[in-house]
Amino acid sequence: MRDLMAITERPEVISLAGGLPDVSGFPPQMLERVAKAMTDGAGPRRARRPYGPTEGMAKVHEAIQVVMAEEGTQVDLGELLVTTGGQQAIDLVCKTLVDPGDVVLAEGPTYPGAIPSFTAYQADVRQLEMDEHGLRIDLLEETLDQLDEAGIRPKFLYTIPTFQNPAGVTMSLERRKQLVKIAQERELLVVEDSPYSLLRYEGDPLPTLRSLDGGNYVIYLGTFSKILAAGLRIGWIAAPRAIRQKMNIGKQGADLCSPSTSQVVIEACFQDLPLWRSYLEDVKGRYQGRRDVMLSSLAHAMPEGTSWTRPEGGLFLWVTLPEALDTTDLLARALRSNVAFVPGRAAYTDGRGGHSMRVNFSGVNADDIHEGVRRIGDVVFEQLELYGDVMGEAPPKRRATDRPTGAKPPVDDAPEQGALVEFPRRRSAERPA
Amino acid sequence: MRDLMAITERPEVISLAGGLPDVSGFPPQMLERVAKAMTDGAGPRRARRPYGPTEGMAKVHEAIQVVMAEEGTQVDLGELLVTTGGQQAIDLVCKTLVDPGDVVLAEGPTYPGAIPSFTAYQADVRQLEMDEHGLRIDLLEETLDQLDEAGIRPKFLYTIPTFQNPAGVTMSLERRKQLVKIAQERELLVVEDSPYSLLRYEGDPLPTLRSLDGGNYVIYLGTFSKILAAGLRIGWIAAPRAIRQKMNIGKQGADLCSPSTSQVVIEACFQDLPLWRSYLEDVKGRYQGRRDVMLSSLAHAMPEGTSWTRPEGGLFLWVTLPEALDTTDLLARALRSNVAFVPGRAAYTDGRGGHSMRVNFSGVNADDIHEGVRRIGDVVFEQLELYGDVMGEAPPKRRATDRPTGAKPPVDDAPEQGALVEFPRRRSAERPA
Repeated sequence: MRDLMAITERPEVISLAGGLPDVSGFPPQMLERVAKAMTDGAGPRRARRPYGPTEGMAKVHEAIQVVMAEEGTQVDLGELLVTTGGQQAIDLVCKTLVDPGDVVLAEGPTYPGAIPSFTAYQADVRQLEMDEHGLRIDLLEETLDQLDEAGIRPKFLYTIPTFQNPAGVTMSLERRKQLVKIAQERELLVVEDSPYSLLRYEGDPLPTLRSLDGGNYVIYLGTFSKILAAGLRIGWIAAPRAIRQKMNIGKQGADLCSPSTSQVVIEACFQDLPLWRSYLEDVKGRYQGRRDVMLSSLAHAMPEGTSWTRPEGGLFLWVTLPEALDTTDLLARALRSNVAFVPGRAAYTDGRGGHSMRVNFSGVNADDIHEGVRRIGDVVFEQLELYGDVMGEAPPKRRATDRPTGAKPPVDDAPEQGALVEFPRRRSAERPA
Repeated sequence: MRDLMAITERPEVISLAGGLPDVSGFPPQMLERVAKAMTDGAGPRRARRPYGPTEGMAKVHEAIQVVMAEEGTQVDLGELLVTTGGQQAIDLVCKTLVDPGDVVLAEGPTYPGAIPSFTAYQADVRQLEMDEHGLRIDLLEETLDQLDEAGIRPKFLYTIPTFQNPAGVTMSLERRKQLVKIAQERELLVVEDSPYSLLRYEGDPLPTLRSLDGGNYVIYLGTFSKILAAGLRIGWIAAPRAIRQKMNIGKQGADLCSPSTSQVVIEACFQDLPLWRSYLEDVKGRYQGRRDVMLSSLAHAMPEGTSWTRPEGGLFLWVTLPEALDTTDLLARALRSNVAFVPGRAAYTDGRGGHSMRVNFSGVNADDIHEGVRRIGDVVFEQLELYGDVMGEAPPKRRATDRPTGAKPPVDDAPEQGALVEFPRRRSAERPA
């Protein structure tokens, strides 16, 4: 993944491999608040405070309560721990709970960035399949039964129930209730990673696992990265007090405390809630348009026998190609066409995912999404034709909605329709509004 | 340590337990630069860049080169990794190099904050004594021989050669050369932690181990915490490329990258090198005055049979009490007198340090240093008298330089002589210049 990201830094590459938010619309008023916080009032005192409390500043805890309340979730201050981004939240969960050889359950596919944390602490990761309603609870029960018979107690289940990374699916309300019931009956800790929940583009919000459980068996992980600014590297853990206390000690050893500078920025930005809410609405509008472009681009560029998920929110969708193809090999070929994606194997610990890929639609403008998907489609066609030649099979078919390659699909936010060549690559302001 | 720090947050407690820099003199021009960087020019783009490179921004690497050059140490860009504070640097060293049961060598006493990192990764820590010239190289050789005979290869030696935390001693030039020679002959990795080296108040600077070794067997850890602002949480590792690459992957799993916000602040502050240098001179002047107050306060407040180190720089000194006393017990009593220190056992993994303590002079003003040391002295006398009664021994003696308790010692920076009661507690601007 790291080497991949380095390659995708090249300006000529359209990267659908990232998980980047687009921050081009960050409101100037908010930046002014930040600058003011750095120079007057209590901000400088706090920003320059050498080390804040390990658990984070009180004003940041208040901002977290606001964000979690938007998801209908209550949290006590004594349950909160500010972390250096969502990544550290996962790392601290593992550092605190995992002994070498411990079984950890996760969705298959799961967040590729969680895998190095699991393996760094030598967890034995078992990944359970999802369908369009999220994690399959029947498989979970089966696995728990098998583990129980073998005398193995899993340390926790790691799940991203809403707009899952990388699959783009959302766990249904019924399954959420089932999962929380299982957690309580079997005393199974559930780690609910929730970086994207406020980025919903359609459908009704669903309750968090944490709110259904009341905070007994669910450890909730959040982050400001996707709803304010990722560069701040501020996330959080909401955990039962005894667990939070252990994690607090783990964090002390990891980096003492998260940067005061970033915490003062969050304090400044959350002083004006309507401004933050309107920024969030703006971000959602932009991402929704890009998701729609990606869905229609895929429909036009991909051969029959290809499928993908249709996320109601978040940043990603998951594309499954014909079984003959291997997306790790395909990536090497795609990079020569200056387009990148995350090969599916990166989302598994056990070699699965070979003919799937994750594509991101939040960090790239509509033109580049369209062009990037077109390039991937061309590589897929080319490889399938090659495979067909070798195997003596029929060439791949274009879909019924086929158009000449290079034509733009009809999209909602298309003021620049036809302006493809005039727009420099990798600009991220396709919605001037 | 964490619980201790929480108690010392109480405003009535004079805490000599911290390791805090005093940032009250942070120049307004530098704050203005920071605010400007947040709102105009390339700063906002970089600050808002969702994720920077894991190894850190190029401008921060340049600032690190400047800082290391001040210590006479060259470093290539490909050897640098920006970390989330000096603490994460230690954590990444352990995460990357230590497997459970591995032997790690360290000074005894060592930095109390390193111990949780060592133990989190289940290192077998062996601590070697120091004298006034730093780590005893004869003991190191003896230990290496014993380990060699037992077929054990230590993963690394962790050392703070300059103004050691907590002992306040500095490794002599001769020992530095011996250590580097041993490292090369025996292929022993040395982790040189160097947070305080630029805070020298007297004597000539000594070359870093890294500069003597040329970067083959020495991993150098640095931080901006003590020379700019600890709240930024930015430190670094300079390591041989292959090791740096492994640590880079470890950091990816730990927190993806350090905050862009903090990195942009560092870029802004290092644009004006003379301003940074004059800030550093100001800090050094203030700390030197406080060190002198602490030395003279100890001479007046402590009984015979007590000794302490005389640091040429840094933030700490190490006090050794008569063996009859236990500083962990003494701390409980001292907290009732509203004064705190770090009991010596916190600096060992093996129970040593029972009659020693670490005291900090950088984060507390001169009046509070004087008053805090007086209170500690009173508790020490009281406990020794109690012990003498029980054991039928003579009462403890005051030193020849004894003065009535509560009187101020003669100090160099004493414009407030006699003004004790007029100055509010815990102010930190005893040097108006």
